[in-house]
Amino acid sequence: MKLHGYFRSSASYRVRIALNLKGLSADHLPHHLRKGEQCAPAYLAINPQGLVPTLENDGGAVLTQSLAIIEWLDETHPEPPLLPADPLQRAKVRAFAMALACDTHPIQNLKVLARLRKLGLPEEQVTGWAAWANREGLSACEALVAHEDGPFCFGAKPTLADLCLVPQLANARRFGVDVAAYPRLLKVEAAAKNLAAFADAAPERQPDAE
Amino acid sequence: MKLHGYFRSSASYRVRIALNLKGLSADHLPHHLRKGEQCAPAYLAINPQGLVPTLENDGGAVLTQSLAIIEWLDETHPEPPLLPADPLQRAKVRAFAMALACDTHPIQNLKVLARLRKLGLPEEQVTGWAAWANREGLSACEALVAHEDGPFCFGAKPTLADLCLVPQLANARRFGVDVAAYPRLLKVEAAAKNLAAFADAAPERQPDAE
Repeated sequence: MKLHGYFRSSASYRVRIALNLKGLSADHLPHHLRKGEQCAPAYLAINPQGLVPTLENDGGAVLTQSLAIIEWLDETHPEPPLLPADPLQRAKVRAFAMALACDTHPIQNLKVLARLRKLGLPEEQVTGWAAWANREGLSACEALVAHEDGPFCFGAKPTLADLCLVPQLANARRFGVDVAAYPRLLKVEAAAKNLAAFADAAPERQPDAE
Repeated sequence: MKLHGYFRSSASYRVRIALNLKGLSADHLPHHLRKGEQCAPAYLAINPQGLVPTLENDGGAVLTQSLAIIEWLDETHPEPPLLPADPLQRAKVRAFAMALACDTHPIQNLKVLARLRKLGLPEEQVTGWAAWANREGLSACEALVAHEDGPFCFGAKPTLADLCLVPQLANARRFGVDVAAYPRLLKVEAAAKNLAAFADAAPERQPDAE
Protein backbone atom coordinates (compact mmCIF):
# COMPACT_ATOMS: atom_id res chain seq x y z
CA MET A 1 0.00 0.00 0.00
CA LYS A 2 1.02 3.63 -0.41
CA LEU A 3 0.16 6.34 2.08
CA HIS A 4 0.27 9.89 0.80
CA GLY A 5 0.78 12.11 3.84
CA TYR A 6 2.79 14.72 5.66
CA PHE A 7 4.65 14.23 8.91
CA ARG A 8 2.81 16.97 10.75
CA SER A 9 -0.67 16.35 9.31
CA SER A 10 -2.78 15.05 12.17
CA ALA A 11 -5.12 13.26 9.77
CA SER A 12 -2.13 11.37 8.31
CA TYR A 13 -0.94 10.65 11.86
CA ARG A 14 -4.28 8.94 12.64
CA VAL A 15 -3.87 6.60 9.68
CA ARG A 16 -0.24 5.85 10.55
CA ILE A 17 -1.34 4.73 14.03
CA ALA A 18 -4.09 2.54 12.53
CA LEU A 19 -1.67 0.87 10.12
CA ASN A 20 0.78 0.21 12.97
CA LEU A 21 -1.92 -1.23 15.26
CA LYS A 22 -3.03 -3.55 12.44
CA GLY A 23 0.56 -4.59 11.77
CA LEU A 24 0.37 -3.30 8.20
CA SER A 25 3.09 -1.48 6.32
CA ALA A 26 2.80 1.15 3.62
CA ASP A 27 5.22 3.16 1.53
CA HIS A 28 5.07 6.71 2.81
CA LEU A 29 4.83 9.33 0.10
CA PRO A 30 5.27 12.76 1.67
CA HIS A 31 3.62 15.88 0.24
CA HIS A 32 4.99 19.06 1.73
CA LEU A 33 1.85 20.97 2.68
CA ARG A 34 3.57 24.28 3.43
CA LYS A 35 5.08 24.21 -0.05
CA GLY A 36 1.63 23.47 -1.53
CA GLU A 37 2.59 20.08 -2.99
CA GLN A 38 -0.91 18.78 -2.18
CA CYS A 39 -2.24 21.09 -4.91
CA ALA A 40 -0.10 19.61 -7.69
CA PRO A 41 -2.32 18.40 -10.57
CA ALA A 42 -1.09 14.79 -10.26
CA TYR A 43 -2.13 14.72 -6.61
CA LEU A 44 -5.46 16.47 -7.19
CA ALA A 45 -6.24 13.75 -9.74
CA ILE A 46 -6.32 11.19 -6.93
CA ASN A 47 -7.54 13.50 -4.15
CA PRO A 48 -9.72 16.31 -5.51
CA GLN A 49 -9.81 17.96 -2.09
CA GLY A 50 -6.05 18.49 -2.16
CA LEU A 51 -5.79 17.14 1.37
CA VAL A 52 -3.74 14.39 2.97
CA PRO A 53 -3.90 11.50 3.64
CA THR A 54 -4.72 9.37 0.63
CA LEU A 55 -4.23 5.60 0.75
CA GLU A 56 -3.64 3.53 -2.37
CA ASN A 57 -4.31 -0.10 -1.56
CA ASP A 58 -2.55 -3.11 -3.05
CA GLY A 59 -5.15 -3.32 -5.81
CA GLY A 60 -4.50 0.32 -6.77
CA ALA A 61 -7.81 1.62 -5.36
CA VAL A 62 -7.65 5.14 -3.98
CA LEU A 63 -9.12 5.95 -0.57
CA THR A 64 -9.44 9.44 0.90
CA GLN A 65 -10.53 10.96 4.23
CA SER A 66 -8.70 9.58 7.26
CA LEU A 67 -11.77 8.25 9.08
CA ALA A 68 -13.09 6.51 5.96
CA ILE A 69 -9.64 4.97 5.44
CA ILE A 70 -9.52 3.75 9.05
CA GLU A 71 -13.04 2.28 8.86
CA TRP A 72 -11.95 0.45 5.68
CA LEU A 73 -8.81 -0.84 7.39
CA ASP A 74 -10.95 -2.04 10.28
CA GLU A 75 -13.42 -3.80 7.99
CA THR A 76 -10.77 -5.49 5.88
CA HIS A 77 -8.23 -6.23 8.65
CA PRO A 78 -10.44 -6.77 11.71
CA GLU A 79 -7.71 -7.53 14.28
CA PRO A 80 -7.24 -5.75 16.58
CA PRO A 81 -10.63 -3.99 16.26
CA LEU A 82 -10.62 -0.19 16.34
CA LEU A 83 -14.33 0.00 17.14
CA PRO A 84 -16.22 -1.89 19.88
CA ALA A 85 -18.70 -4.62 18.86
CA ASP A 86 -21.76 -3.06 20.54
CA PRO A 87 -23.58 -0.54 18.29
CA LEU A 88 -24.12 2.02 21.06
CA GLN A 89 -20.47 1.89 22.08
CA ARG A 90 -19.46 2.20 18.43
CA ALA A 91 -21.61 5.32 18.20
CA LYS A 92 -19.91 6.83 21.25
CA VAL A 93 -16.43 6.12 19.89
CA ARG A 94 -17.33 7.54 16.48
CA ALA A 95 -18.93 10.63 18.05
CA PHE A 96 -15.78 11.36 20.05
CA ALA A 97 -13.64 10.86 16.94
CA MET A 98 -15.89 13.18 14.93
CA ALA A 99 -15.92 15.88 17.60
CA LEU A 100 -12.25 16.17 16.68
CA ALA A 101 -12.21 15.10 13.01
CA CYS A 102 -15.25 17.19 12.00
CA ASP A 103 -15.54 20.04 14.47
CA THR A 104 -11.99 20.69 15.59
CA HIS A 105 -9.23 19.73 13.18
CA PRO A 106 -10.73 21.20 9.96
CA ILE A 107 -11.30 24.58 11.70
CA GLN A 108 -7.58 24.86 12.47
CA ASN A 109 -5.99 23.25 9.44
CA LEU A 110 -3.52 24.93 7.14
CA LYS A 111 -6.11 25.86 4.52
CA VAL A 112 -8.40 27.66 6.97
CA LEU A 113 -5.53 29.45 8.69
CA ALA A 114 -4.21 30.57 5.30
CA ARG A 115 -7.65 31.98 4.51
CA LEU A 116 -7.69 33.94 7.76
CA ARG A 117 -4.31 35.45 6.87
CA LYS A 118 -5.64 36.32 3.42
CA LEU A 119 -8.48 38.23 5.09
CA GLY A 120 -5.87 40.34 6.80
CA LEU A 121 -5.89 38.89 10.31
CA PRO A 122 -2.57 39.35 12.14
CA GLU A 123 -0.57 36.24 13.04
CA GLU A 124 -1.52 36.53 16.71
CA GLN A 125 -5.23 36.29 15.89
CA VAL A 126 -4.63 33.39 13.50
CA THR A 127 -2.85 31.40 16.21
CA GLY A 128 -5.55 32.46 18.69
CA TRP A 129 -8.19 31.09 16.33
CA ALA A 130 -6.41 27.72 16.10
CA ALA A 131 -6.01 27.58 19.89
CA TRP A 132 -9.71 28.40 20.34
CA ALA A 133 -10.75 25.57 17.99
CA ASN A 134 -8.56 23.14 19.89
CA ARG A 135 -9.84 24.25 23.31
CA GLU A 136 -13.47 23.94 22.19
CA GLY A 137 -12.92 20.43 20.87
CA LEU A 138 -10.77 19.13 23.71
CA SER A 139 -13.09 20.52 26.40
CA ALA A 140 -16.01 18.68 24.84
CA CYS A 141 -13.93 15.50 24.54
CA GLU A 142 -12.88 15.68 28.19
CA ALA A 143 -16.60 15.70 29.08
CA LEU A 144 -17.47 12.92 26.62
CA VAL A 145 -15.15 10.44 28.37
CA ALA A 146 -15.52 11.71 31.95
CA HIS A 147 -17.50 8.63 32.96
CA GLU A 148 -15.80 6.08 30.70
CA ASP A 149 -13.27 3.58 32.02
CA GLY A 150 -9.63 4.23 31.09
CA PRO A 151 -6.83 4.25 30.47
CA PHE A 152 -7.88 4.79 26.87
CA CYS A 153 -10.87 6.93 25.87
CA PHE A 154 -13.22 3.97 25.95
CA GLY A 155 -11.68 1.25 28.08
CA ALA A 156 -8.62 -0.92 28.11
CA LYS A 157 -7.78 -0.90 24.39
CA PRO A 158 -7.21 1.87 21.87
CA THR A 159 -10.05 2.73 19.48
CA LEU A 160 -10.70 5.22 16.71
CA ALA A 161 -11.24 7.81 19.46
CA ASP A 162 -7.64 7.53 20.69
CA LEU A 163 -6.34 7.62 17.11
CA CYS A 164 -7.93 11.05 16.75
CA LEU A 165 -7.10 12.34 20.21
CA VAL A 166 -3.33 11.84 20.31
CA PRO A 167 -2.63 13.80 17.09
CA GLN A 168 -5.06 16.54 18.16
CA LEU A 169 -3.24 17.03 21.47
CA ALA A 170 -0.02 17.52 19.49
CA ASN A 171 -1.75 20.23 17.44
CA ALA A 172 -3.14 21.88 20.56
CA ARG A 173 0.32 22.17 22.07
CA ARG A 174 1.70 23.59 18.82
CA PHE A 175 -0.88 26.37 19.06
CA GLY A 176 -0.03 27.11 22.69
CA VAL A 177 -3.06 25.51 24.36
CA ASP A 178 -2.55 24.64 28.03
CA VAL A 179 -3.47 20.97 27.80
CA ALA A 180 -3.22 20.54 31.60
CA ALA A 181 -6.89 21.56 31.56
CA TYR A 182 -7.71 18.07 30.18
CA PRO A 183 -6.39 15.57 32.77
CA ARG A 184 -8.48 12.63 31.54
CA LEU A 185 -7.27 13.17 27.97
CA LEU A 186 -3.66 13.38 29.14
CA LYS A 187 -4.03 9.99 30.83
CA VAL A 188 -5.14 8.57 27.50
CA GLU A 189 -2.14 10.11 25.79
CA ALA A 190 0.26 8.67 28.38
CA ALA A 191 -1.19 5.18 27.89
CA ALA A 192 -1.07 5.53 24.12
CA LYS A 193 2.53 6.73 24.02
CA ASN A 194 3.56 3.50 25.77
CA LEU A 195 2.50 1.60 22.67
CA ALA A 196 4.95 1.36 19.79
CA ALA A 197 2.06 1.74 17.32
CA PHE A 198 1.49 5.28 18.58
CA ALA A 199 5.11 6.19 19.29
CA ASP A 200 6.33 5.10 15.86
CA ALA A 201 3.57 7.13 14.15
CA ALA A 202 4.59 10.42 15.80
CA PRO A 203 5.44 13.30 13.44
CA GLU A 204 9.05 13.57 14.62
CA ARG A 205 9.63 9.91 13.74
CA GLN A 206 8.63 10.29 10.09
CA PRO A 207 11.20 10.40 7.26
CA ASP A 208 9.94 13.81 6.08
CA ALA A 209 10.14 15.39 9.56
CA GLU A 210 11.95 18.71 9.62
CA MET B 1 -36.84 8.27 20.16
CA LYS B 2 -36.21 11.97 20.59
CA LEU B 3 -34.28 14.05 18.09
CA HIS B 4 -32.86 17.31 19.39
CA GLY B 5 -32.38 19.54 16.34
CA TYR B 6 -33.09 22.77 14.53
CA PHE B 7 -34.96 23.11 11.28
CA ARG B 8 -32.12 24.82 9.43
CA SER B 9 -29.25 22.75 10.86
CA SER B 10 -27.89 20.69 8.01
CA ALA B 11 -26.54 18.05 10.41
CA SER B 12 -30.04 17.63 11.87
CA TYR B 13 -31.43 17.50 8.32
CA ARG B 14 -29.14 14.52 7.53
CA VAL B 15 -30.51 12.57 10.49
CA ARG B 16 -34.11 13.45 9.62
CA ILE B 17 -33.60 11.97 6.15
CA ALA B 18 -32.04 8.82 7.64
CA LEU B 19 -34.96 8.33 10.05
CA ASN B 20 -37.44 8.79 7.20
CA LEU B 21 -35.63 6.34 4.91
CA LYS B 22 -35.61 3.77 7.73
CA GLY B 23 -39.32 4.35 8.40
CA LEU B 24 -38.57 5.44 11.97
CA SER B 25 -40.26 8.24 13.85
CA ALA B 26 -38.87 10.48 16.58
CA ASP B 27 -40.20 13.34 18.65
CA HIS B 28 -38.54 16.47 17.37
CA LEU B 29 -37.22 18.76 20.09
CA PRO B 30 -36.15 22.04 18.52
CA HIS B 31 -33.33 24.15 19.95
CA HIS B 32 -33.22 27.63 18.47
CA LEU B 33 -29.56 28.01 17.52
CA ARG B 34 -29.71 31.73 16.76
CA LYS B 35 -31.09 32.31 20.24
CA GLY B 36 -28.28 30.16 21.73
CA GLU B 37 -30.60 27.51 23.16
CA GLN B 38 -28.00 24.83 22.37
CA CYS B 39 -25.81 26.36 25.10
CA ALA B 40 -28.39 25.93 27.88
CA PRO B 41 -26.89 23.87 30.76
CA ALA B 42 -29.55 21.15 30.44
CA TYR B 43 -28.63 20.64 26.79
CA LEU B 44 -24.87 20.81 27.37
CA ALA B 45 -25.33 18.01 29.92
CA ILE B 46 -26.36 15.66 27.11
CA ASN B 47 -24.26 17.23 24.33
CA PRO B 48 -21.08 18.84 25.69
CA GLN B 49 -20.29 20.30 22.28
CA GLY B 50 -23.47 22.38 22.33
CA LEU B 51 -24.29 21.27 18.81
CA VAL B 52 -27.31 19.67 17.22
CA PRO B 53 -28.40 16.99 16.53
CA THR B 54 -28.57 14.70 19.55
CA LEU B 55 -30.63 11.51 19.43
CA GLU B 56 -32.04 9.89 22.55
CA ASN B 57 -32.97 6.32 21.74
CA ASP B 58 -35.87 4.35 23.23
CA GLY B 59 -33.60 3.04 25.99
CA GLY B 60 -32.64 6.61 26.96
CA ALA B 61 -29.09 6.37 25.55
CA VAL B 62 -27.72 9.63 24.16
CA LEU B 63 -26.06 9.74 20.73
CA THR B 64 -24.27 12.76 19.28
CA GLN B 65 -22.62 13.65 15.93
CA SER B 66 -24.88 13.20 12.92
CA LEU B 67 -22.67 10.69 11.09
CA ALA B 68 -22.22 8.55 14.22
CA ILE B 69 -25.99 8.63 14.72
CA ILE B 70 -26.62 7.59 11.12
CA GLU B 71 -24.07 4.75 11.30
CA TRP B 72 -25.84 3.57 14.49
CA LEU B 73 -29.24 3.73 12.78
CA ASP B 74 -27.81 1.73 9.88
CA GLU B 75 -26.32 -0.91 12.16
CA THR B 76 -29.46 -1.31 14.29
CA HIS B 77 -32.06 -0.89 11.51
CA PRO B 78 -30.29 -2.32 8.46
CA GLU B 79 -33.07 -1.83 5.89
CA PRO B 80 -32.73 -0.02 3.59
CA PRO B 81 -28.94 0.12 3.90
CA LEU B 82 -27.31 3.56 3.83
CA LEU B 83 -23.88 2.14 3.03
CA PRO B 84 -22.97 -0.37 0.29
CA ALA B 85 -21.90 -3.89 1.30
CA ASP B 86 -18.48 -3.79 -0.37
CA PRO B 87 -15.75 -2.29 1.87
CA LEU B 88 -14.17 -0.20 -0.89
CA GLN B 89 -17.52 1.23 -1.90
CA ARG B 90 -18.31 1.94 1.74
CA ALA B 91 -15.03 3.85 1.97
CA LYS B 92 -15.92 5.94 -1.08
CA VAL B 93 -19.36 6.79 0.29
CA ARG B 94 -17.95 7.69 3.69
CA ALA B 95 -15.17 9.80 2.14
CA PHE B 96 -17.71 11.80 0.12
CA ALA B 97 -19.86 12.28 3.24
CA MET B 98 -16.84 13.40 5.25
CA ALA B 99 -15.65 15.82 2.58
CA LEU B 100 -18.85 17.66 3.51
CA ALA B 101 -19.34 16.71 7.17
CA CYS B 102 -15.70 17.30 8.19
CA ASP B 103 -14.22 19.75 5.71
CA THR B 104 -17.16 21.87 4.59
CA HIS B 105 -20.06 22.16 7.00
CA PRO B 106 -18.07 22.85 10.21
CA ILE B 107 -16.12 25.67 8.48
CA GLN B 108 -19.36 27.51 7.72
CA ASN B 109 -21.48 26.72 10.75
CA LEU B 110 -23.01 29.29 13.05
CA LYS B 111 -20.27 29.03 15.66
CA VAL B 112 -17.43 29.68 13.23
CA LEU B 113 -19.24 32.53 11.50
CA ALA B 114 -19.96 34.10 14.90
CA ARG B 115 -16.25 33.90 15.68
CA LEU B 116 -15.37 35.66 12.44
CA ARG B 117 -17.79 38.48 13.35
CA LYS B 118 -16.22 38.69 16.79
CA LEU B 119 -12.83 39.20 15.12
CA GLY B 120 -14.30 42.23 13.41
CA LEU B 121 -14.89 40.91 9.91
CA PRO B 122 -17.68 42.74 8.07
CA GLU B 123 -20.82 40.79 7.15
CA GLU B 124 -19.84 40.64 3.50
CA GLN B 125 -16.61 38.85 4.32
CA VAL B 126 -18.37 36.48 6.69
CA THR B 127 -20.83 35.44 3.97
CA GLY B 128 -17.94 35.26 1.50
CA TRP B 129 -16.15 32.87 3.87
CA ALA B 130 -19.19 30.60 4.08
CA ALA B 131 -19.61 30.65 0.30
CA TRP B 132 -15.92 29.80 -0.15
CA ALA B 133 -16.18 26.80 2.19
CA ASN B 134 -19.21 25.53 0.30
CA ARG B 135 -17.57 26.00 -3.12
CA GLU B 136 -14.43 24.16 -2.01
CA GLY B 137 -16.43 21.23 -0.69
CA LEU B 138 -18.92 20.97 -3.52
CA SER B 139 -16.22 21.24 -6.22
CA ALA B 140 -14.37 18.32 -4.66
CA CYS B 141 -17.61 16.33 -4.37
CA GLU B 142 -18.49 16.96 -8.02
CA ALA B 143 -15.10 15.38 -8.89
CA LEU B 144 -15.52 12.49 -6.44
CA VAL B 145 -18.67 11.25 -8.19
CA ALA B 146 -17.80 12.25 -11.77
CA HIS B 147 -17.33 8.61 -12.79
CA GLU B 148 -19.96 7.04 -10.54
CA ASP B 149 -23.30 5.84 -11.85
CA GLY B 150 -26.32 7.99 -10.94
CA PRO B 151 -28.84 9.21 -10.32
CA PHE B 152 -27.65 9.24 -6.70
CA CYS B 153 -24.05 9.90 -5.69
CA PHE B 154 -23.18 6.22 -5.78
CA GLY B 155 -25.73 4.42 -7.90
CA ALA B 156 -29.44 3.74 -7.92
CA LYS B 157 -30.18 4.14 -4.22
CA PRO B 158 -29.51 6.88 -1.70
CA THR B 159 -26.58 6.44 0.68
CA LEU B 160 -24.93 8.41 3.46
CA ALA B 161 -23.34 10.54 0.72
CA ASP B 162 -26.71 11.82 -0.51
CA LEU B 163 -27.85 12.46 3.06
CA CYS B 164 -24.94 14.87 3.43
CA LEU B 165 -25.14 16.40 -0.03
CA VAL B 166 -28.76 17.55 -0.13
CA PRO B 167 -28.55 19.61 3.10
CA GLN B 168 -25.20 21.06 2.02
CA LEU B 169 -26.63 22.28 -1.29
CA ALA B 170 -29.32 24.10 0.70
CA ASN B 171 -26.61 25.81 2.75
CA ALA B 172 -24.65 26.71 -0.37
CA ARG B 173 -27.66 28.47 -1.89
CA ARG B 174 -28.29 30.32 1.36
CA PHE B 175 -24.77 31.74 1.14
CA GLY B 176 -25.21 32.77 -2.49
CA VAL B 177 -23.16 30.03 -4.17
CA ASP B 178 -23.97 29.46 -7.85
CA VAL B 179 -24.74 25.75 -7.63
CA ALA B 180 -25.15 25.48 -11.42
CA ALA B 181 -21.38 24.82 -11.37
CA TYR B 182 -22.14 21.32 -10.01
CA PRO B 183 -24.40 19.62 -12.59
CA ARG B 184 -23.77 16.07 -11.35
CA LEU B 185 -24.64 17.07 -7.79
CA LEU B 186 -27.81 18.82 -8.96
CA LYS B 187 -28.92 15.59 -10.66
CA VAL B 188 -28.51 13.82 -7.32
CA GLU B 189 -30.57 16.50 -5.62
CA ALA B 190 -33.35 16.23 -8.21
CA ALA B 191 -33.54 12.46 -7.72
CA ALA B 192 -33.50 12.82 -3.94
CA LYS B 193 -36.23 15.43 -3.85
CA ASN B 194 -38.56 12.97 -5.60
CA LEU B 195 -38.39 10.79 -2.50
CA ALA B 196 -40.73 11.62 0.39
CA ALA B 197 -37.96 10.73 2.86
CA PHE B 198 -35.92 13.69 1.59
CA ALA B 199 -38.81 16.06 0.88
CA ASP B 200 -40.36 15.59 4.33
CA ALA B 201 -37.01 16.25 6.02
CA ALA B 202 -36.53 19.66 4.38
CA PRO B 203 -36.06 22.62 6.75
CA GLU B 204 -39.20 24.40 5.56
CA ARG B 205 -41.30 21.34 6.45
CA GLN B 206 -40.24 21.26 10.09
CA PRO B 207 -42.51 22.45 12.92
CA ASP B 208 -39.92 25.00 14.10
CA ALA B 209 -39.42 26.52 10.62
CA GLU B 210 -39.65 30.30 10.56
